[in-house]
Amino acid sequence: MSGVDELLGNARAYARDFDKGDLPSAPARKTAVLACMDARLIPSRLFGLQEGDAHVIRNAGGVVSDDAIRSLAISQHMLGTEEIIVVQHTDCGMLKLTDEGFAGKLEEATGERPQWPVHSFDDLDENVRESVRRIKESPFIPRTDRVRGFVYDVETGELREVT
Amino acid sequence: MSGVDELLGNARAYARDFDKGDLPSAPARKTAVLACMDARLIPSRLFGLQEGDAHVIRNAGGVVSDDAIRSLAISQHMLGTEEIIVVQHTDCGMLKLTDEGFAGKLEEATGERPQWPVHSFDDLDENVRESVRRIKESPFIPRTDRVRGFVYDVETGELREVT
Repeated sequence: MSGVDELLGNARAYARDFDKGDLPSAPARKTAVLACMDARLIPSRLFGLQEGDAHVIRNAGGVVSDDAIRSLAISQHMLGTEEIIVVQHTDCGMLKLTDEGFAGKLEEATGERPQWPVHSFDDLDENVRESVRRIKESPFIPRTDRVRGFVYDVETGELREVT
Repeated sequence: MSGVDELLGNARAYARDFDKGDLPSAPARKTAVLACMDARLIPSRLFGLQEGDAHVIRNAGGVVSDDAIRSLAISQHMLGTEEIIVVQHTDCGMLKLTDEGFAGKLEEATGERPQWPVHSFDDLDENVRESVRRIKESPFIPRTDRVRGFVYDVETGELREVT
């Protein structure tokens, strides 16, 4: 049995107990979370989110890529969210590589160089600040008065706001 | 109290009970999930994922954007994942808009046209198949023998594999 088969068994159990079939698509808390994909960080558990509460956007680093802007724009323009929480974290893989190093590694392995930015960073707090700034400066995200950035500590489970 | 303040209270409670400070960064289940950001879908709950189990990448639609490829490439090359699960869902917002419609709406609202693709779609099953295909065809994702695509039904809680 592969790892995925076990997860699919869990999904069948989830469906058996499911009683949330009438939720609207617009998030009840009018909030979008942008967080790193890291396995140790589970935004719904950290923030106590229930089904229907908030959009959760995740990528390597929790960075404000063009695709994160796309998702946030759709979240606000089409589905009425008004607040944004950015969560990056200690011991992030994106602190352990460089754009050139990773692009070079891929080019070496495949003969092809990625056309997308790697989005590595070397100063966690500064990257959170930069992420909040990029969201606030985007013309495509209309509500930017409530955008807050945080660092999640994977060793203590604590969330610290970056101001 | 804004919605976010309540979520931050939940995060403080999470930290108080936290006992998972020694997890490695590499996902224990060697799996990456790519899913839609939709509020009604909580991948960790659906699949029974614990902290440390799997990467979770999410965007509007759960589509294979360049940024999803970037995240999956980092997941496999740097953090040893080997399986990919794609989850898109019924009643998705991306079924209710068109690329031209949304780009035009943004242009009208801001005077600027987004340079990124909107990634709307009109056939859910076909879009799941196309997503799996795009992952398998990417030169930057080395392990593509276990990539599976699913539709989550937001009314029943059931997950259906698309083959």
